[in-house]
Amino acid sequence: MKLLKEKILQEGIVLSENVLKVDSFLNHQMDPVLMSEIGREFANRFTSESITKVLTIESSGIGPGIMAAMHLQVPLIFARKRKSMTLTDNLLTSSVYSFTKQEDYTISVSSKFITSQDNVLIIDDFLANGQAALGLIDLINEAGAALAGVGIVIEKGFQEGGRVLRERGIKVESLAILKSLKDGNIQFADAATEEVIIHE
Amino acid sequence: MKLLKEKILQEGIVLSENVLKVDSFLNHQMDPVLMSEIGREFANRFTSESITKVLTIESSGIGPGIMAAMHLQVPLIFARKRKSMTLTDNLLTSSVYSFTKQEDYTISVSSKFITSQDNVLIIDDFLANGQAALGLIDLINEAGAALAGVGIVIEKGFQEGGRVLRERGIKVESLAILKSLKDGNIQFADAATEEVIIHE
Repeated sequence: MKLLKEKILQEGIVLSENVLKVDSFLNHQMDPVLMSEIGREFANRFTSESITKVLTIESSGIGPGIMAAMHLQVPLIFARKRKSMTLTDNLLTSSVYSFTKQEDYTISVSSKFITSQDNVLIIDDFLANGQAALGLIDLINEAGAALAGVGIVIEKGFQEGGRVLRERGIKVESLAILKSLKDGNIQFADAATEEVIIHE
Repeated sequence: MKLLKEKILQEGIVLSENVLKVDSFLNHQMDPVLMSEIGREFANRFTSESITKVLTIESSGIGPGIMAAMHLQVPLIFARKRKSMTLTDNLLTSSVYSFTKQEDYTISVSSKFITSQDNVLIIDDFLANGQAALGLIDLINEAGAALAGVGIVIEKGFQEGGRVLRERGIKVESLAILKSLKDGNIQFADAATEEVIIHE
């Protein structure tokens, strides 16, 4: 997605070979116009899949998630990482390992919002090692629902998450795939962006 | 806001005299069409205020916040309740007391996203005792920015937050104000809704 890649090149800050900071438009400050275009792009890429629900995880997934849900005209559900006072129902739960924090955390969704009738699209801001996506897939399986696919704003192509999901036959659509962050340079994996870099 | 109040009457579940569960459309599952209408309504109510930024707090504020930001065509910033690995900048921070959890937690925003040039609209899903809103106002003051007002989806009119903020001269716009949840009945404080109740 050209608009997104341009924004990444303009505002992304490489903190290390593994960490790209995009907090000016994606996961702390959010650009709502870009977010809406991202949602529209996800809706286009999954338009033939008869999605009934969009599922994401708090907090950074909610922006792109609700915009995808808006353009698909279906509800968004966000999995919680903490317990809610008013979430007293039966919960679908899964354990997710965080490489960053080196600990497990539990994600949960009320079982009344995902059922065996649903065809669920997962949306998240980043795909790195894939642990969060796998946790969300667990919740979908637990509900007996179908997984339509996974939509990612920025995939770290140099980490294993994308390969792990695609090897399972899951449709993964990433709007920008990072090939490398070496030496402070942002390189994209997909051809369309090389063009953007050349034009910079 | 009629559409919102109808949704509350249709889907809200009274858990106690103080707790209304609206997780089917506001803070767990979200209805993106309603959320967009809520954002449009906030934009209309603050259209004369020359807003430059919308500020909310993770996680439930992000949905209404980004929709308000979209309709106002300004960025959204969400304050974090936890530390982020990539938030290494100077932070604006404030301590918020949670009556629910009976403990303090720290909220923070990167100082580069709110400056003395900004006129900030706070958006949140609920207003109860006002602690979260006061914490966000602290961040705005710390930045030397101006506060344009506070937009709330559901105000618990029987708790003190709304009075506390309005007594400070702050413009508070709540799209639905609950008068009471006694005996499992949802009663709104503002006249327009009595009409809705009668028509139910």
